[in-house]
Amino acid sequence: MEASPAPGTQARGDGREARLLLGFDFAGTFVFAVEGAIAAIAGGLDPLGILVLSFTTALGGGILRDLLIGAIPPNAIRDPRYALVAFGGGATVLLLHRFVSFVPPALLVTLDAAGLSLFAIAGARKALDFGLRPLMAILMAAITGAGGGTVRDLFLAHVPTVLRADIYAVAALSGALVMVVGQRLGLPSRTMAFVGGAACFALRVISVWRGWNLPHLSGMGRG
Amino acid sequence: MEASPAPGTQARGDGREARLLLGFDFAGTFVFAVEGAIAAIAGGLDPLGILVLSFTTALGGGILRDLLIGAIPPNAIRDPRYALVAFGGGATVLLLHRFVSFVPPALLVTLDAAGLSLFAIAGARKALDFGLRPLMAILMAAITGAGGGTVRDLFLAHVPTVLRADIYAVAALSGALVMVVGQRLGLPSRTMAFVGGAACFALRVISVWRGWNLPHLSGMGRG
Amino acid sequence: MEASPAPGTQARGDGREARLLLGFDFAGTFVFAVEGAIAAIAGGLDPLGILVLSFTTALGGGILRDLLIGAIPPNAIRDPRYALVAFGGGATVLLLHRFVSFVPPALLVTLDAAGLSLFAIAGARKALDFGLRPLMAILMAAITGAGGGTVRDLFLAHVPTVLRADIYAVAALSGALVMVVGQRLGLPSRTMAFVGGAACFALRVISVWRGWNLPHLSGMGRG
Repeated sequence: MEASPAPGTQARGDGREARLLLGFDFAGTFVFAVEGAIAAIAGGLDPLGILVLSFTTALGGGILRDLLIGAIPPNAIRDPRYALVAFGGGATVLLLHRFVSFVPPALLVTLDAAGLSLFAIAGARKALDFGLRPLMAILMAAITGAGGGTVRDLFLAHVPTVLRADIYAVAALSGALVMVVGQRLGLPSRTMAFVGGAACFALRVISVWRGWNLPHLSGMGRG
Repeated sequence: MEASPAPGTQARGDGREARLLLGFDFAGTFVFAVEGAIAAIAGGLDPLGILVLSFTTALGGGILRDLLIGAIPPNAIRDPRYALVAFGGGATVLLLHRFVSFVPPALLVTLDAAGLSLFAIAGARKALDFGLRPLMAILMAAITGAGGGTVRDLFLAHVPTVLRADIYAVAALSGALVMVVGQRLGLPSRTMAFVGGAACFALRVISVWRGWNLPHLSGMGRG
Repeated sequence: MEASPAPGTQARGDGREARLLLGFDFAGTFVFAVEGAIAAIAGGLDPLGILVLSFTTALGGGILRDLLIGAIPPNAIRDPRYALVAFGGGATVLLLHRFVSFVPPALLVTLDAAGLSLFAIAGARKALDFGLRPLMAILMAAITGAGGGTVRDLFLAHVPTVLRADIYAVAALSGALVMVVGQRLGLPSRTMAFVGGAACFALRVISVWRGWNLPHLSGMGRG
């Protein structure tokens, strides 16, 4: 991602980088769609429900962000390739569902963390491009990264897992914070996008690996 | 609906047809509102909750579609008659709720299939009018037809029934697919709207009558 | 709020009044955020979930209203101070959660009724400013006042309390109705905003104090 751009070159102005970013976006969409489909199967849904959850898990966060920042119609509605990638992820799980239980959880966590990083950084950048203030752009990173999974959980009548002790939205927020702060300090935009994404990825993977959670409030709980 | 229009005549340009389509739209709204109210009563809700579910079941799908395609404010917010029709449907159930259990289920299924067809076709046409690509317009048919019931189920803390084995969204998708493919083959737009709507209606009614469902995945399930 | 304005002066044109209204708005946001945080703690959520519920409870209704009336990006996304106030309310509960159980319920009810009144009146006025018809503006009062709590309940996998017997949305609707009817009768806009807000507040507080509810339907129920 670091091709030492000429000063003043917009990141999106470069056709080769734009294609690269689009490729990352589709990769994240595919991974999230696979996860949505796996959750749908665990919830006892049938093929249509599996495809619906693939779509909403993969694209719900970006659609919600686009509605909120005024990018209407949302990108995932305007460009049919997003839906095709999401349905492709769901269909892959449908075809291979007998083998899903053999996928190592560590692989799923790693891919999901990669998708989260891509969505968080892309979400914050798009929000900044649409004129949002830095704080709100950072929140949009969390909505982009965790919004789809939240809709998925609502559809499955669960309390969204993002609300329960987990370094997930926090990783998205942290990565976006790193990126936004770096940019305001005048550091190069692409470098900071990369550093922010790496921070999000590392925080998420390490938190799962080490069992990190947000601190509980003492004297509280459901019990 | 087939008045052999002069070539080049916009379907919506004809005042008489526009009134007819509006009448269909209100009829579908009323039917869906009645269903929302019946579900609210079954869920133990009180009069206000019944009216809220009438509104959301009848208009939630169209409102969501309009937000997604950029028709803002949504039609159901811009034109108060939609809300009045929806509340009218809810109030009818409130007044006649002692008799609701005497309504033959076959009548409810038939009316619901008619409402689904109207919403699916109208949703896909509006999405095309707003410049969406055919695949996304077909998806908008499902969102328009099944979105309101999905919001209703979320409000009742159910997993949306559309996600469970049922030829419901599939009927909406199929009808819209027929319409869109026909139009791209150069067939007359009104004829294809009618054929698509009839396909949706027939598929839904026959699937209930014959107990058709989407195939289950072998070796899966909630158990 | 009644400073005997010169005829023709827009309420929003007056800088001092605009600041007053903004202050009211932030106060309502803070109160609703506190309630969201308390509900999150009761639901066993962790700090991040508490902050998320503070945000959605306080700002979800206004964001939904803004999306529906076409005020995009919604005010609460455009202006970061709303998010800061909401997170401030959540953080206050986090810091003082040991003392939350000592807050008299009557105080919470009173503050909540004040927040509801502010949100309902502000919601209806904004909807009118954006050209909505009176009936829809009145509905927007209920969405602004009760929408955030509804999203909170969905996140906690509850049937939204607003759907269950309670004079809550009804108070918002009544206050907005009083305001809109008064304005259409030519009464001064600020006076009617005040009278409508007072009506909403009084109806809500008295209904809790006296145990008023909407009538149940005879012969129905969840049992």
